[in-house]
Amino acid sequence: MSIAVTPIIAIDRKARRPLHQQIYDAYRDSIVSGTLRPGQRVPSTRGLAAELGVSRMPVLGAYAQLMAEGYFQSRVGAGTTVSLSLPDQNLAPQPYKFRAKTARSARRRQVAERSFFPDSISTPPWRRGWGAFGVGQVALEEFPLRPWNSLVTRHSRLIGPKSLDYGHPMGLKDLREALMVYLRTARGVRCDAEQIMIVSGSQQALDIAARVLLESGSQVWMEEPGYRYARRVFALNGCRVVPIPVDGEGLKVGVGVKRCREARAVLVTPSHQYPLGVTMSASRRLQLLDWAERSGAWILEDDYDSDYRYEGMPISSLQGLDPNARVIYIGTFSKVLFPSLRLGYLVIPGDLVERFISVRLAMDIGPASFWQAVLADFIQEGHFSRHIRRMRLLYRERSHALVNGIEKELGSAVEVTGEQAGMHLCVTVSGISDREIVNRAARANLWLVPLSSSYMGRAARQGFILGFGSTATSEMTSAVRKLRNVLNLERVGGRASEQTRL
Amino acid sequence: MSIAVTPIIAIDRKARRPLHQQIYDAYRDSIVSGTLRPGQRVPSTRGLAAELGVSRMPVLGAYAQLMAEGYFQSRVGAGTTVSLSLPDQNLAPQPYKFRAKTARSARRRQVAERSFFPDSISTPPWRRGWGAFGVGQVALEEFPLRPWNSLVTRHSRLIGPKSLDYGHPMGLKDLREALMVYLRTARGVRCDAEQIMIVSGSQQALDIAARVLLESGSQVWMEEPGYRYARRVFALNGCRVVPIPVDGEGLKVGVGVKRCREARAVLVTPSHQYPLGVTMSASRRLQLLDWAERSGAWILEDDYDSDYRYEGMPISSLQGLDPNARVIYIGTFSKVLFPSLRLGYLVIPGDLVERFISVRLAMDIGPASFWQAVLADFIQEGHFSRHIRRMRLLYRERSHALVNGIEKELGSAVEVTGEQAGMHLCVTVSGISDREIVNRAARANLWLVPLSSSYMGRAARQGFILGFGSTATSEMTSAVRKLRNVLNLERVGGRASEQTRL
Repeated sequence: MSIAVTPIIAIDRKARRPLHQQIYDAYRDSIVSGTLRPGQRVPSTRGLAAELGVSRMPVLGAYAQLMAEGYFQSRVGAGTTVSLSLPDQNLAPQPYKFRAKTARSARRRQVAERSFFPDSISTPPWRRGWGAFGVGQVALEEFPLRPWNSLVTRHSRLIGPKSLDYGHPMGLKDLREALMVYLRTARGVRCDAEQIMIVSGSQQALDIAARVLLESGSQVWMEEPGYRYARRVFALNGCRVVPIPVDGEGLKVGVGVKRCREARAVLVTPSHQYPLGVTMSASRRLQLLDWAERSGAWILEDDYDSDYRYEGMPISSLQGLDPNARVIYIGTFSKVLFPSLRLGYLVIPGDLVERFISVRLAMDIGPASFWQAVLADFIQEGHFSRHIRRMRLLYRERSHALVNGIEKELGSAVEVTGEQAGMHLCVTVSGISDREIVNRAARANLWLVPLSSSYMGRAARQGFILGFGSTATSEMTSAVRKLRNVLNLERVGGRASEQTRL
Repeated sequence: MSIAVTPIIAIDRKARRPLHQQIYDAYRDSIVSGTLRPGQRVPSTRGLAAELGVSRMPVLGAYAQLMAEGYFQSRVGAGTTVSLSLPDQNLAPQPYKFRAKTARSARRRQVAERSFFPDSISTPPWRRGWGAFGVGQVALEEFPLRPWNSLVTRHSRLIGPKSLDYGHPMGLKDLREALMVYLRTARGVRCDAEQIMIVSGSQQALDIAARVLLESGSQVWMEEPGYRYARRVFALNGCRVVPIPVDGEGLKVGVGVKRCREARAVLVTPSHQYPLGVTMSASRRLQLLDWAERSGAWILEDDYDSDYRYEGMPISSLQGLDPNARVIYIGTFSKVLFPSLRLGYLVIPGDLVERFISVRLAMDIGPASFWQAVLADFIQEGHFSRHIRRMRLLYRERSHALVNGIEKELGSAVEVTGEQAGMHLCVTVSGISDREIVNRAARANLWLVPLSSSYMGRAARQGFILGFGSTATSEMTSAVRKLRNVLNLERVGGRASEQTRL
């Protein structure tokens, strides 16, 4: 059922045109110009009269005329609508499309240079489907919808005038306090609730931090290979990214210092490097903190999936090691709960909180309150920790199944890194062009992120980032076989001990 | 060979922290603080377990973790030692509080200049309370909670794996289509659903538009007086605001052209100028569109409360008049529904949609989906139009009550503008300092926004912006009397025809 719509009717009591004529004209013009479309409902005569502040008589008159001439029709049960028999296209003005001339003219090129990301709109092949081996895809079917929905229902009953006004730009106090407890115990983050800002996800967290801390022209170290969507944030803020290579111990701090000692900031993923999956070693952590303190640089720690660690305890955050409050800690619920929630957080050094608030106010005033309240209860009632524990077992199983499958099916043709944690691992393959293969893979419904896409410069390695979050353990073997076929590799192991490989 | 050293480990069996975590923490802290030095031997797991009087399991766990993270290393013949690759410096962490020295040090001043808004954190007196005459406050108690909540409940039952993944960066299709119908018919906006981007409110809308269209250093016309929170968006984006005076016909386009013809953009509120409340005249509209087309400038039209118009029908948007697609139209649901919803929208010229999407992706990926789905149904089922019609009557009544009260109580001491529409009007008062009075008013629970705060330069007028959205008609007279007392004015009218005024 469509909405009852009223066109813009400018009633002029002093005009010579009688009221019913004015109403009639307004409707007819709106219909002829295509503003009102066939089948759209029109208000009742009583409703329109009230809205216009006129008596019902002229409205009845106008409607009768519109009906008589065939602009309106009245059907039992459907009320009065714009007539369905009107030719939709011929009456309509030109659709609101820009002529090529306009679009190409110089005047339309007066847009900001920083907003130009040539590759950002076309969805890359590996983002087009769901399942093996989509990266960033979580086991949505395992999400505890029952307790979640009962909290949603409970909170929707609590919606009232008080919850309808603006909230605090830092976010809901209850959620920040629940998060504080979680961050201190599960991630070794040292913080008070006053330092936690709720944001819409790690992308916004990074953007706010960049706007507070970086000038246009500031230099920023990023891991190479690294998270490509983060590069856009820095580009949007006019910063220059300096890629610093990653080895088995994480970002090579010494190379960074040699290459660009005076960088204003660094973005790192120390718990589970994206995409290689390595954990930053203790000595690199201490070197990085030392450099930051000496040079006055900021460390942006993106701790996107550190909850899931399959050997030993979760790795403590870099933030918790830092005595000088130079780390801005970024977390998200997109991986540990689900992406459409659009909630994440920043842990801000105490003396920078006001700066962050003022930038936040200018950007979007603050986060919406409802989901924060639901999530605060979800954490406080224990569902959150329970979910993490369950998922850690599930993802460990999926990770093991994937690693076993790779060993069995691909053998030494590939090298696996980063399988100790998270929801993806990385395989490097020599002698291939990973970008060529991903297109072939997509045609076979296999969603491979090419490792080379994570490099800013020339890719030092070729291979794939394999997400296993959305692939059931039972389907892992067949997914790996598909991968083997796409890679044109022969089966490894079994009775055949000699293999031919690409 | 050095002796195996044990840090002081205070095992607490009653603590929630598991034993292995306690052992791990003790070693890590000792290493980071320099108590244990690179190369020093650590006891065997068996030895430490005996020493601490615990089983060997937690010690094995802690050692494995310390090894994995690189704090320990194991060499044949040397046993386990503190890792030699750790930087040997004084790493001692200070307790996590900022000493005054740190906070003042030059290193902590390495933040972006554009993020400095001296006045943004301290809440001004007029934002501290609810009721007469708070600006931007809506009649929350009149919000149709029943249909809204039943939609919330219905949609919370529909939450499932499919609704948990990322949505489209432009927003939910259903909502954009419902909005398109509404915008075309009720506001005369010419658009397709593909041009509508759902955002978190008009603040984010403005920020996205600024980032797409403006460079750092771009000049932007703003109405003087104008919306002060919008100035922050331009400041944050490094733009220079050029204030252009407003008269009874809206922004004085001629003055703008004379003062800064080459401005890249203008922000206007043509339906109901904020704060004066005037409607931009047809000739000014055409002048503005003409200037924009000639100079290649962009028009940002903030149509924040045009649904409520008390004489005649809503004024058609500037966007709908523009044949050249130079207008970016901004709307919000904060006024017409409620602020904590955090939903608004942009209508984007067709050829700029991709640019907007790419900036949006870099900023926050996209809007959360749940409320969009609820709102789409709320519109499609007719609740939205019904609510607007009801509120238009209610606010008209409140507006009339306020205007009558002012006439009766304040008489010719003040001049009223902008009472034909919206949820606020403006009174100018000569011979006062409005900022002095607002503090006095706040102490009397009267929330007055000083008109002078809306000026960038010297305030040409003093007075107040009076919101009437959250004040019941029955309370209007006493609120106006309070205002009279705060202004130190004598009662007007009644038997006393002669008055003394300030």
